[in-house]
Amino acid sequence: MELKGWKRSSLLGLEGLGEDEIIQIIDKAETFVDKDHFEISENNFLQGYRVINLFMEPSTRTRVAFEIAAKSLGADVISIAGEASSLTKGETLRDTALNVKALGADAIVIRHSSPGSPLLLSKMVDLPIINAGDGAHEHPSQALLDIFTLKKKFGTLKGKKITILGDILFSRVARSNLFGLITMGAEVTLAGPSTLVPKSFTQLGARVTHNLEEALSEADAVMLLRIQHERQSASHFPSLSEYSKMFGLKKSTLEWMKKDAVILHPGPLNRGVEIESELADSGRSLILQQVSNGIAVRMAILYLCATAHKLLS
Amino acid sequence: MELKGWKRSSLLGLEGLGEDEIIQIIDKAETFVDKDHFEISENNFLQGYRVINLFMEPSTRTRVAFEIAAKSLGADVISIAGEASSLTKGETLRDTALNVKALGADAIVIRHSSPGSPLLLSKMVDLPIINAGDGAHEHPSQALLDIFTLKKKFGTLKGKKITILGDILFSRVARSNLFGLITMGAEVTLAGPSTLVPKSFTQLGARVTHNLEEALSEADAVMLLRIQHERQSASHFPSLSEYSKMFGLKKSTLEWMKKDAVILHPGPLNRGVEIESELADSGRSLILQQVSNGIAVRMAILYLCATAHKLLS
Amino acid sequence: MELKGWKRSSLLGLEGLGEDEIIQIIDKAETFVDKDHFEISENNFLQGYRVINLFMEPSTRTRVAFEIAAKSLGADVISIAGEASSLTKGETLRDTALNVKALGADAIVIRHSSPGSPLLLSKMVDLPIINAGDGAHEHPSQALLDIFTLKKKFGTLKGKKITILGDILFSRVARSNLFGLITMGAEVTLAGPSTLVPKSFTQLGARVTHNLEEALSEADAVMLLRIQHERQSASHFPSLSEYSKMFGLKKSTLEWMKKDAVILHPGPLNRGVEIESELADSGRSLILQQVSNGIAVRMAILYLCATAHKLLS
Repeated sequence: MELKGWKRSSLLGLEGLGEDEIIQIIDKAETFVDKDHFEISENNFLQGYRVINLFMEPSTRTRVAFEIAAKSLGADVISIAGEASSLTKGETLRDTALNVKALGADAIVIRHSSPGSPLLLSKMVDLPIINAGDGAHEHPSQALLDIFTLKKKFGTLKGKKITILGDILFSRVARSNLFGLITMGAEVTLAGPSTLVPKSFTQLGARVTHNLEEALSEADAVMLLRIQHERQSASHFPSLSEYSKMFGLKKSTLEWMKKDAVILHPGPLNRGVEIESELADSGRSLILQQVSNGIAVRMAILYLCATAHKLLS
Repeated sequence: MELKGWKRSSLLGLEGLGEDEIIQIIDKAETFVDKDHFEISENNFLQGYRVINLFMEPSTRTRVAFEIAAKSLGADVISIAGEASSLTKGETLRDTALNVKALGADAIVIRHSSPGSPLLLSKMVDLPIINAGDGAHEHPSQALLDIFTLKKKFGTLKGKKITILGDILFSRVARSNLFGLITMGAEVTLAGPSTLVPKSFTQLGARVTHNLEEALSEADAVMLLRIQHERQSASHFPSLSEYSKMFGLKKSTLEWMKKDAVILHPGPLNRGVEIESELADSGRSLILQQVSNGIAVRMAILYLCATAHKLLS
Repeated sequence: MELKGWKRSSLLGLEGLGEDEIIQIIDKAETFVDKDHFEISENNFLQGYRVINLFMEPSTRTRVAFEIAAKSLGADVISIAGEASSLTKGETLRDTALNVKALGADAIVIRHSSPGSPLLLSKMVDLPIINAGDGAHEHPSQALLDIFTLKKKFGTLKGKKITILGDILFSRVARSNLFGLITMGAEVTLAGPSTLVPKSFTQLGARVTHNLEEALSEADAVMLLRIQHERQSASHFPSLSEYSKMFGLKKSTLEWMKKDAVILHPGPLNRGVEIESELADSGRSLILQQVSNGIAVRMAILYLCATAHKLLS
């Protein structure tokens, strides 16, 4: 059990994570990915370990991925889901955290609508805390699987031009990717309607554009964000057909893209909105690799944080 | 690992399944049934196998039975349930299927409101697909457990007269049983109010009657269907008390039945509607055997499909 | 497998349970508690055992605790939750019970809104039945963990003065504790507003008071009950702020308490209502020990009932 310098027992976000740390996650994930899951040598590494999936905001995709990742390392997973869970009614986050610890949790994976909840949790209980999405703040496991997928494709991210396209304003996926990609040496462009991509993002080190051709023309990879139907009523939000017309990826926009530029999307896809169906299924699309890689990356996160926690305690 | 000719890695329905195939499922199920589940020799057969229960239509009964069956063979089960699951919102079935495969599924058990969904799934992903009920189309595991239960009782189904009684019109249970029972050599009568049992079913090889005495008088077994309360508002549907009076099984209708005729019901029972309470609890009732046999039959289905898939790939 | 006289294969309530039986549960729980759960020697005691968690009333806390307890002994746990579960729609409790048994359950943990449901269940099916809360009747596992926590603190309960404070009227927690604490030799005071604590409780052997100072002044332990927000509309119920002012524990009420008196609460806490935040976090509070002890006590309950059932059958 040797960790070459990984010292975090929690993963709260990608802001502040060093390049060496991201690489360590990627290297560990590499040992898990693309293997038949019957043959992972460390499939009992977390035997007897109790992971509590605390999802205070609806999610199937991320919750299931963490459940599979934890079970693939031999852990038991207890899922506590639902905004109005009777575990938490009227209860403060601190009380929920202390209760979950008292139930014998060895690690907590948390999704919560309030930014900073995982950080708070990590200060309240001495357990590995994994952020599975906190409000508009961060979604580090998603960004790490995106970065893993890109690095696997390109070998390195240094100097690569990555465009994140869509509803950036409140996107935790965009934020985490921005931090991680810049750390890995990539050049990031944020693109979309001006109401959804304010110029202020340039302060975080990204280029901002509201012109699709400009956004696509030099990109080595285009990372789409899901358009949230539920935000349609907001005044700053264009209609779906308007969005699709102006910022959707289509065969006709391919001429603006480099020949070997790839496309990512965190799912679920709105075919015909963010991307034309044919493109989503083309060889450029890394969308399904992202899903598979998501298991391996989350295994790596659990592996590293659990190990660091044992070594530190 | 030898399968005497079983070649299907998916079970999509009973239409088109041969007698030898049904018998093979029954024979395999026989090795699992009525055993203390501590003593099943193949309880690690699917060790490390990841079964994803994809239930896009509400169900507890069938979902739990498949969960128990899969776990009894040592598999891990991941349940994704709920019509409005966030896994699938706005997403096509094809995308859901590809995502589930990318999550590392080894087999998918699917319930869906659209007829043909399991077939579609099986064309999209190279995995064993088990149909757990698709709209008004088929519910093969239910019919197989019914057939298993009847064969256990009678030794053979050849020449046996089986009456299916109730709301046949949109019943996937009735359709699957009709296909399976006829294949096994039984003579099937469909019975119920004329609005629920159209004459056109005779084209599928069944006799149709709207007269209860006629339906019961020669039957070796009467298979009741559940009256769906939620369909009460439909204009072609009689009231519950009307239905019960005309087509409910009662002590008074026993005189029309053969002395040793048995009764089946897929559950949950509406006591006093389809059947009088006393009858449901009498020696004629095979209802609880059906539930127990359902585990064994679903173990057999998973066993055979998983094995065929391994041999074929 | 020797049980020193424990003969119950079901735990339906604390009414009628002897002191020796409660001690036996406590002694067994002691072997499980405060251990790293990797090191419990009997963690395979229920290997292959199928526990069905049948929760027909919403609950996260108790359901998760039983799930963890059962898994900690190596059992498989199948959860069937939700009032409107499709397992049970239109179905009688008896039919549900017989179905769950037919699914191969080895034990049933049941929560139900109807008092006496677990007793009924135990008469219908020959399986260990564990009451996880039945209406306003009993909640024995909660009371046992309270008693365990107090006994661990005090060594003995003989002659100890315990005050149960709050909404006693329909509280199954209060009822179970009353039976258990008196059996263990404690003196119990029930306290709260007169509308919530009728004098008639004296017939069960408790002292009743509506005066907080009187309730606290001699108590060795104060057991708070959760104020149910959902009952606020009832005419006999004071407002939250009214309740808090008159019966909430505060720093100012500490002067009425013995110096070493401890505080219990079944959770979730309404900070600022039943108890001031600072007090809940003080050294007097045993609240988190209760949660941890709840796993050990439920392991003991499952252990003893399962063993008795095996020995008796």
